[in-house]
Amino acid sequence: MSVLFWEDFAAGQAAEYGPLTISADDITTFAREFDPQPMHLDEAAARESMLGGLAASGWHTCAIMMRLITDGFLLRSTFMGGAGCDEIRWLAPVRPGDALRVRSRVLEVRESRTRADAGFVKFLFEVMNADEVCVMTAIVHLLFGRREPMPASA
Amino acid sequence: MSVLFWEDFAAGQAAEYGPLTISADDITTFAREFDPQPMHLDEAAARESMLGGLAASGWHTCAIMMRLITDGFLLRSTFMGGAGCDEIRWLAPVRPGDALRVRSRVLEVRESRTRADAGFVKFLFEVMNADEVCVMTAIVHLLFGRREPMPASA
Repeated sequence: MSVLFWEDFAAGQAAEYGPLTISADDITTFAREFDPQPMHLDEAAARESMLGGLAASGWHTCAIMMRLITDGFLLRSTFMGGAGCDEIRWLAPVRPGDALRVRSRVLEVRESRTRADAGFVKFLFEVMNADEVCVMTAIVHLLFGRREPMPASA
Repeated sequence: MSVLFWEDFAAGQAAEYGPLTISADDITTFAREFDPQPMHLDEAAARESMLGGLAASGWHTCAIMMRLITDGFLLRSTFMGGAGCDEIRWLAPVRPGDALRVRSRVLEVRESRTRADAGFVKFLFEVMNADEVCVMTAIVHLLFGRREPMPASA
């Protein structure tokens, strides 16, 4: 499979990655280290919470999104790093056994103001469960190497 | 220590939480599961990357931020869950041995339009290392239970 360069991205491109299934053990292991709230640690306590049952930390869902896009296309691209992320919205609980996918859409492609060898791509990622419920959305800004450096006149 | 309710938050309040020290093993363990890019997995490969040496996944830094605010104040509050996060910016690499702290500032406190028993607090969190470099910023929207339900006339 050919390597994806910055020039290969264009607004409107859509793709889907995954699934990756999350277990109750995955949820509580992540939560014990990073987000030790009762609703992410214990089924009985979680039933009393706003989430109504054991559910993954929102940051766990972010991390799974990253894994899905990494396996999906970043590792076969000139991906250099993430610049930032906007508008993360946790819309529905992620439950034990959920098989998560990422729906990806390119929103914008732009040159870097400081690097001739790289450019930015702005993505909308929607994390979906097997019931086609969108559990999370995020707008992520990623930096990719260019196939050809930006002309000096640009 | 008394429990923090939604009514106890006010714009302008500032606090600091931590530190929590991240090891090379922490960095590579997280990356193997969630963000398996060479720059987060291997020192030699990382030296060739934009980060110039082994550095944590940006999502790992988010997760550590969550742990620091959880231990710092969420577990002694009526915290009900996160609604979203805006303007995550990864500003500088997080290195093995970095002792991370969170500087917190309340930006806004507002009632919920749908729940009489809870309200939102909008925070700016700045993740700092021991050299006083801000490695990440994020604006996070959190839901807290109210001490007194919103009056029906409001």
